[in-house]
Amino acid sequence: MAKEIERKFLVRSDGWRNFVSNTRSLRQAYISSMEDRSVRVRLENGHIATLTVKIGRTMTRDEFEYAIPVADAEELIGTAIGLVIRKTRHNVPFKGFVWEVDVFEGAHEGLVIAEVEMGDESDNPELPDWVGDEVTGQYRYSNQALALQFEQEYNGL
Amino acid sequence: MAKEIERKFLVRSDGWRNFVSNTRSLRQAYISSMEDRSVRVRLENGHIATLTVKIGRTMTRDEFEYAIPVADAEELIGTAIGLVIRKTRHNVPFKGFVWEVDVFEGAHEGLVIAEVEMGDESDNPELPDWVGDEVTGQYRYSNQALALQFEQEYNGL
Repeated sequence: MAKEIERKFLVRSDGWRNFVSNTRSLRQAYISSMEDRSVRVRLENGHIATLTVKIGRTMTRDEFEYAIPVADAEELIGTAIGLVIRKTRHNVPFKGFVWEVDVFEGAHEGLVIAEVEMGDESDNPELPDWVGDEVTGQYRYSNQALALQFEQEYNGL
Repeated sequence: MAKEIERKFLVRSDGWRNFVSNTRSLRQAYISSMEDRSVRVRLENGHIATLTVKIGRTMTRDEFEYAIPVADAEELIGTAIGLVIRKTRHNVPFKGFVWEVDVFEGAHEGLVIAEVEMGDESDNPELPDWVGDEVTGQYRYSNQALALQFEQEYNGL
């Protein structure tokens, strides 16, 4: 089990694009989702598949991640609840931290979110000037909420 | 992904006890549970750990099972929703099929359930005389329901 400690921000400019060190295509969906936990399947560049259990909703979450066969991931994505999320993830190193800038596609086109993963909650990464409002812990900006947005709208949330 | 095709019965006598071929101790709990799916962690004899996604509620369910580290299983069991299920599973071969007789402990002491796994829905295993009423597909006899029974009672279900 790993601890996932991250802060999340909206992105207000394309200033990050000149500093990308790595880019990959992600397709992910939720197999199960409850108040404080989610079970996610993810396909990276179409050939790396993982099943991830995340527990908690704050800056720090417990994360259990396992490699699974790509064929299983495809089948699991087919049984997903809610939408399949498609996004391109860009790694953007900045002052000792690697930011992940997610550019969403499909149903979430237009949304760009930046996350910075920290080793400890007391870490204090300097914010690049292209990040905007912080949305750490805001459920509506979680991938889980994005995937389930249809149900949310349906329930009037 | 495997298909799990099984029928489930209550057990009305101890007649199976003389024919046990294998016995193991199971501790399992649910990490997530929704209408038609569950995510389960199981520890077998304390040293074989699996994470299992089951989808569907009828005789045939999709089952995705992965080996995980025992330490992860212990941590996941610690975050379980509902009760931890403890049971001893006995394999009981009978006329070409292997029955699994689960003798529950702790909160479910007294409950004994027999399952027979089939290769195909058209298989027709002969029923041993120690099985009682069939409860295939009855949610209240699922391990998921047994684990969540407190919440069920709480909700008046």
